[in-house]
This record gives sequence, structure tokens and C-alpha cells, in this order.
Amino acid sequence: MSTEVSITIVGAGSAQFSGGIVRDLCVNPGLHGSHVTLMDIDRHRLAMVARMAERLSEELGAGLSFSQATDRVTALRGADFVLNTAQVGGHSWTEAQRSLAEKHGYYRGAGLHGFGQAAFFLEVARDIARICPNAWLIQSANPVFEGCTLMHRETGIKVLGLCHGHHGYRSIARVLGLDLAHVSAQMPGFNHWIWMTDFRYRGRDAYPLLDEWIETEAEAYWARTDATRTYGDNQMTRAAIHQYRLFGRMPIGDTPRAGGWWYHVDLATKKRWYGHLGGFDSQIGWQQYLDDMSRNVARVERVALDEATPVSETFKPVQSGEQIVPIINALVNDVEGLYQVNIPNQGQIIHGFPEDLVVECQGVVSGAGIRGVSVPPFPPKLVAGAMIPRWHRAELMVQALRSGDRDLLLLYLLDDPRTRSLEQAEALLDEWLADPRNERLARLFI
Amino acid sequence: MSTEVSITIVGAGSAQFSGGIVRDLCVNPGLHGSHVTLMDIDRHRLAMVARMAERLSEELGAGLSFSQATDRVTALRGADFVLNTAQVGGHSWTEAQRSLAEKHGYYRGAGLHGFGQAAFFLEVARDIARICPNAWLIQSANPVFEGCTLMHRETGIKVLGLCHGHHGYRSIARVLGLDLAHVSAQMPGFNHWIWMTDFRYRGRDAYPLLDEWIETEAEAYWARTDATRTYGDNQMTRAAIHQYRLFGRMPIGDTPRAGGWWYHVDLATKKRWYGHLGGFDSQIGWQQYLDDMSRNVARVERVALDEATPVSETFKPVQSGEQIVPIINALVNDVEGLYQVNIPNQGQIIHGFPEDLVVECQGVVSGAGIRGVSVPPFPPKLVAGAMIPRWHRAELMVQALRSGDRDLLLLYLLDDPRTRSLEQAEALLDEWLADPRNERLARLFI
Repeated sequence: MSTEVSITIVGAGSAQFSGGIVRDLCVNPGLHGSHVTLMDIDRHRLAMVARMAERLSEELGAGLSFSQATDRVTALRGADFVLNTAQVGGHSWTEAQRSLAEKHGYYRGAGLHGFGQAAFFLEVARDIARICPNAWLIQSANPVFEGCTLMHRETGIKVLGLCHGHHGYRSIARVLGLDLAHVSAQMPGFNHWIWMTDFRYRGRDAYPLLDEWIETEAEAYWARTDATRTYGDNQMTRAAIHQYRLFGRMPIGDTPRAGGWWYHVDLATKKRWYGHLGGFDSQIGWQQYLDDMSRNVARVERVALDEATPVSETFKPVQSGEQIVPIINALVNDVEGLYQVNIPNQGQIIHGFPEDLVVECQGVVSGAGIRGVSVPPFPPKLVAGAMIPRWHRAELMVQALRSGDRDLLLLYLLDDPRTRSLEQAEALLDEWLADPRNERLARLFI
Repeated sequence: MSTEVSITIVGAGSAQFSGGIVRDLCVNPGLHGSHVTLMDIDRHRLAMVARMAERLSEELGAGLSFSQATDRVTALRGADFVLNTAQVGGHSWTEAQRSLAEKHGYYRGAGLHGFGQAAFFLEVARDIARICPNAWLIQSANPVFEGCTLMHRETGIKVLGLCHGHHGYRSIARVLGLDLAHVSAQMPGFNHWIWMTDFRYRGRDAYPLLDEWIETEAEAYWARTDATRTYGDNQMTRAAIHQYRLFGRMPIGDTPRAGGWWYHVDLATKKRWYGHLGGFDSQIGWQQYLDDMSRNVARVERVALDEATPVSETFKPVQSGEQIVPIINALVNDVEGLYQVNIPNQGQIIHGFPEDLVVECQGVVSGAGIRGVSVPPFPPKLVAGAMIPRWHRAELMVQALRSGDRDLLLLYLLDDPRTRSLEQAEALLDEWLADPRNERLARLFI
């Protein structure tokens, strides 16, 4: 038995993302026969991805059908699920915004690209509310925390944010030499700001194993600079362990990557806390990431264009680590399962924060929808030291975009530890809002 | 008819404070015959204040009786009301903590003296819970916000914080040339962080009058540097008006004095925002304040020691602007009245903040106790921009003192915009905790 659904991918020009989704659909028989609408503003890439997707579905006998759209309204018509993976202005605009902020004294940027992203998410959400109000919006592009909160507050649509960061607990298990099959962990929080509140190995508390590793092996681990250590290895860095001590729970995934501003003041500091590459967000690590991504894009495009080799040799027919398709299957075919989700904090899943804030937690997904699994109260130092200030940042962004009030953009910058004066923040804001590439967003703040 | 109550003043060596309270008792016949226990660690000042108080009561026929105590346990026995006005270590320790922080790059200090104060408040509150558990604790020494929240969370005693800051709306009315008798205002928030949510003149919204003043008269007002402009005139400064625009409501009392860090980066900036003296918290303004205070202390001491002149020539027999005694009278004699109080946020007086946080609001005081007057929802930009970050600072201090966890002190400093590195914060913290004058507090954090 299968249920045929209609899935729209916004930003489908990413061959890797779309290919992965289609592969997951192919290996979930419950969704065979579904229709996928590939939407992107780049017609050329769209055609390439569509052809690849068709070949993959044929190779794997999934009976999927595809259509292409460059227009969002067309793309959303009849959708049951909308996956939003688009990056506004692409990587080049993200990088340009970083450079712009660096000129004003914001080393590695002031995080401004999130505003344009979230504003775009809201446009999509409003279209969904109008065109396919019963659809689920599955948000994977960042900022998931602010974006999902904004969409939830401003529209009535069903919003679900998904991310890979929670897999970070596996890196811990790997470094500790544990058999993953016997490891369990809980990691609630806000997206990219999640904390391992429970960690078990063979049913018993595994935090003592982590503590022992810190005591006896961490220094040797941090001293290594060989090729096995990549920019992506944030999970067991000195920064992560310092955060663990500071807040009382182990930060997971992108949480130690963000860390605190004090790990990021300059490259030397980054190297001290994140290893010889300076972590994901250093000049070194980020460039390696961009290079890796370019290589990956080129590789997948070669696959897409190479009609002589089966696509399924690259997108192998096994379920990926991506939760999107299993969750769709759980919802439409009532296959109950436990996932890591970002959903509104209804019922105070995380105590002490607004019910209309989107939090990351475990969710039971089934035909009945998504029901959050409540989280035991966080330790006070985690709430006071980490959760309230992160909520503050999110609230500034969300309220800025809800209100179109420029003061809130200014307050966002004034809250940035790199801001040394009101004039500095004003100058960055003026230049950023005046940038022609930012015209759509700037119109909100007139 | 009068009700004789027992009032203990902790820190009664302040002749001005104690004299003011005794005078207010004298002019409230409902409290005649009451007993006042004057408690201070300075035996000499205590004797002087006690003699002055006795003379004042005799002159005004109030039938008050007095006792002196240098021991808190003795002083609290049988108390119905405890007024805590003590400053731990006096002004010299406050100044020394500022200098200590300045050495580490914290211009005008890092606000550390609040920790020692609040820790002391908690000691008093715990004594009250043990010795006179039904007493009201009336907290007037700062930090009222953090201190009252800490005492409320850690003990079951009745805590009431009082402050003069809300009178700031009168300064606005004065500058606007309004007849105070026809002005009304509401100013809820957190202590020293309150906002004029409603402002009326002869029943009509008076915000337009303020806006007009800003438009037409503010620049001329700010340009004045004559002797009529003192360090205490924060209410209509350029900083206050900037805050009003940034957050959407007029900041009142100590709110514009605190302002935002961006008004305080150096003396030139302070002068720009607060006028030619740089405001209350500049090198100039603060020194004038200390000088004024010394002169005042000397003056009141002369009054106390001058047996030839009636004390009531200085402490004139009219009710002061201080709410303490009228509130005591309202509570014990069931004289219903509306006051500006700091009480737990029970029933979400200010929506969206914890119920065990002490907020500033109007309170109806009567024999039934103190009942908070609920506040209409604050504008989102005020919540996101001003209230959440202020709550964050308070939560760090309160949780630090509840837990004795040094990490929370560190996080408090890391949240300070003047902190440029982890090492800077650590160095200040180490030196501060090691200071012999801080021994009592430091013991909490071992």
C-alpha cells in the first residue's frame, strides 16, 4: 500500500538536496507514485535536476512523477508538503554580507544574512497559507529557529523545522569508542543551540565516560593536526568541552560551533578552541567548506549529466540520515516514530519560554500529527547562561521582521559583542540596507 | 486610633534615611506609639541617630520608642516590618570595586557590587524567615530587582521593594510645563528599568506634548549648561529621548540613567548623551554626587548633635515622598491606596516573564496585603529590545547567588559589552574574588 502525495521543493536547483530527497522517496515504498514539483529560479539547473530525478525514479522503480516550476504560485498548487531549502542570493550574497560587515569591524560577519533568509521564508509561508493551507512546510534552510518561529507566529500553517545537528551525539560516541547501537541521547533546545540532557550507553548514564575522556584523553585528541581532523569536527573540541563545563550539559552539533563569542575573537583564538583549522567558521575552515561544497556540486552535476552511468550509483538506494522523507511517510501512512523536530513550544515543552517560540525536541510523528515530547527542566545555569540570551537574539530578529521596525535591526547589532559604538552599528546598518542586492529586504524597513 | 508596630531598620546608621522614616512615622498618627529598632554595625552612629530620633518623636508628640542593636538577631526579634537600607562595606567598597574593574578595562566598573549587596540581602531574609517569619521585608537598598527576586525565590518571606525612580515622570511634566496636579502616569517594568506605558494630562494622552517638546524645544534644553542642570537630571536627556525612540516608550527614573552601554563608552560619549556633566555615572557627575552626599551626611549629623535646635526644623513634620511609612500604615490600618511597588510577578502582572521574578508595578495596598495591578502587554520592541536582556542580567546574578556557581559570575562578565576576551573576564573575577574585602561573598563561590 502506498499513499501518493504531492511534494514541492523550493530551491530544488540543489542537485544534492533534491537527489537525496528523491532517493529517500524511492526507498520508502509507502510514498511510491508521489509527485514532486521542483521549483527554482534557475531554469537550467532545474532541468538538469529534473532529468536526474526522473532517471533515479526509473532506475529504482518508484513510479514518481516530476514537474518543474520557476514560479512559486504554480509550484505550490496542490502541495501536501513543501520543502524549503532555498538560500536567498546564494552563497555569494551570504559571503558579500559577511565582507560588508567585516569592513565595519565585525570579524567573520554580523549574521545579517539570516534576516533575508527568514524574510523569504515568511513570503513562502504566506503563499502556502493562501494556496495550499493544509500543506506541511518543512524548513531545512537556516535560520530554522528564527524562521520557523516567524512563520508560525505570522501564519497559521503547519511548520516543521529539521536539521542534522542532533547527530552530533554520534561523534561523541565515536570518539569515546562506544558501539553506536547501544548509545541513546536526548538533545533539546533551540535549533543550533541544543544540549545533551541525557546520554546513555547500554542503558547507563554515559556522562562519566565523557568526563573520563576529558580527564585522560582530551589533550592528546586536541593536539592532533593530521588530515583526519577536518573543519567540521566541532563536537569534541576544546570549545565544546569548555561550553559543557560552563553550562553543565554537553552542547551538540552546531551548538559548540556557535559556542560563545569568546571562542571567536580572532583566528588565533579560534585555533586555540577549535583546533589548527580554526573550526568551521574560521577563514581556513570556511574556505575548505566552500571548496568542498563546490567540488560536491560539480560531482553531482557530472552524475546528473552522465546518461551512461546510473544515478543510483551515486544516490545509493538506502535511506539517508535525512529525516524529511521518513517523517512524511510517518504522517501520511501513520507509521509512528520518534524524530528530532523543531515545533512550536505548545504546552511548554521547554519550560519558561513562550509557547509560540519554535523549539527543538523529540517529536512523536504519526497519522495524528507531530506531538512534542516534554523536556525535564533545564539546569538554571543553562537557562540563565545560554537559553535566555539565545532567545533574546531570536526575538530581536523575529520582531524586526514582523514589524519592519529598523530599531530592532539596530538593537540586534547593539547586542553583538563586536559592536563598540552606536555609530558603528548605524554605519553597518545603513550600508547593508542600501545595498542593491538587499533591496527586497530593505523595503520591509522603510 | 493607632496600631503600634515594631519596625527594624537595618543600616540605621544613615541619619538621613532613619530621620526620614521617623519623621514620616511622626506625621502618620495611625502608627504613633510604635517601636523602632535601629540596627547598624557602627555603634557610634547608631547612638547619634537614636538620640536624634528620640528628640524628633518627642518634639512631634508621636510617642515612638527606640532601641539600638548591633546584632541582627536581636534586632529582628518581634519585628513586624524590616527596612533594609544597608550598603555592604559602605561607599568605599563600592568605589574600590569600581576601581578594581577599571584596571581590567571596565570603564566605570562592572557592576560587581550588586552581588555582595544581594548576597547580604539574602542573609537578612533568611534571618527574618527564622526569627520573625511574618514580618514584611521592605527593601530600599539596591539592587532591588535582583535582590528582591533572590529573597523571594530562596525564602518564603513577604518581600516588598521600594524606590523613588518612578517620580521621574514628574520631571517630564515639569520640563513640559504641566500642572502636576493634573498629570497621571503608569510606569511598570523591572526596578530601574521602567517605562511610561501611559501618560495623561487633564485626562488626555500627553505623549503628543512630549513629542512636540522633542521637536521644538529639546535641542535648546540640551544645550544649556548652567547651574540649574545637575548630574541628577537624567530624565529629559538626549539619552532618554533616544531610548524612547528606540523602545517606543519613555524610560523613567533610573532607566535613562542606565540607558544602554552605547551611551556610556567614554566621557565624551556620556557628555553627548547626558549633558556637560556626563550624567550621574560619569567621573564628573558621580564625584558631585559623592560630594553632595558627604555634605548631606555632615549636615544631618550636625542636626543630630545640636541639642539646642529642634530636629523638626530639619525633618519638617510633613509626609515625605518616601512610600515606606504610608505603605506600613496602609497595611496595618487597612487604609487602601495605590503605590509603586516591586513584588513577585504572580499572575503574570507583566506578561511573558517568570512568576517568581520581582517586577515593578502599581500595587493596591490595604489590610488585605499588596495586590499587583496587571500591566497591558508591552510593545514587542520593548520586550525584545529592553526587557529580555535586562531579565537575562538579573537571572545570571540571582542564579549565581542561589547556586554559588562561579561560572555564572563569569557569564555575567562575558555578557558585559566591555569584555573583549575570556581571559579579561577571568582576570577580573580572580582578583575580585581574592580581595580580602570580598571574603564573605567569595566563600559562596568556593
